[in-house]
Amino acid sequence: MSMSWLDQVNWSSDGLVPVITQDFKTSRVLTHAWLNRDALALAVLENRAIYWSRSRQKLWRKGEESGHIQKLHKVFLDCDGDTVCYVVEQVGGIACHTGRESCFYRQLSDGQWQTIDPVLKNPDEMYAKKHDTQ
Amino acid sequence: MSMSWLDQVNWSSDGLVPVITQDFKTSRVLTHAWLNRDALALAVLENRAIYWSRSRQKLWRKGEESGHIQKLHKVFLDCDGDTVCYVVEQVGGIACHTGRESCFYRQLSDGQWQTIDPVLKNPDEMYAKKHDTQ
Repeated sequence: MSMSWLDQVNWSSDGLVPVITQDFKTSRVLTHAWLNRDALALAVLENRAIYWSRSRQKLWRKGEESGHIQKLHKVFLDCDGDTVCYVVEQVGGIACHTGRESCFYRQLSDGQWQTIDPVLKNPDEMYAKKHDTQ
Repeated sequence: MSMSWLDQVNWSSDGLVPVITQDFKTSRVLTHAWLNRDALALAVLENRAIYWSRSRQKLWRKGEESGHIQKLHKVFLDCDGDTVCYVVEQVGGIACHTGRESCFYRQLSDGQWQTIDPVLKNPDEMYAKKHDTQ
């Protein structure tokens, strides 16, 4: 299989590009993360969002612990080829490790970051029960 | 005026964070860019999207050349405090320097990046007529 589309991504000197992830129905931005070539190739192959974890320095199959996987619907590349956008179906409706729908749950209002999203699930509960929520 | 909300952003070692920009009506992702502290402070003060141009190493008031400014409606911060999301009204309906609505105009389909957006305005025309489209 030709992988020339992977070569058209302008990977930075450290081999990464940022990836924005949106909900397929609401278009809400859920997360901002990073990709390397393997993560992007495998995401497309497995039809699920896969990232490169910079902190853990390894591939991160979103939902592998929490069960909150992201089914991959669409993949976009920007004009400069250095940013990807995933459009996903968020299983469980929770993308954030804090138990909220989106990581972008703080809105600037009157000079303060105001939390606008409720915690839908206790994070302790999300990460204690590995793999069994699917 | 207290600027403590600016201190709550986890600026990286180079003083930047990524910023995702979405359309206020459709929630479509328009651009991915970068912010430093000044860019974010001024954007909120001037109610328009302002970025830090890494290539030009200076503040970039979006639309300063093309006239396609972005009116700032909302600002969000993510859980780790290291990514910002601008929700904007895109004047002229063109966010991309190629003359398209969004920078994310290429979608992966059958192993190829397919262009899904039309060019709404010739880029030569956008950047030749400085400041006069407003």
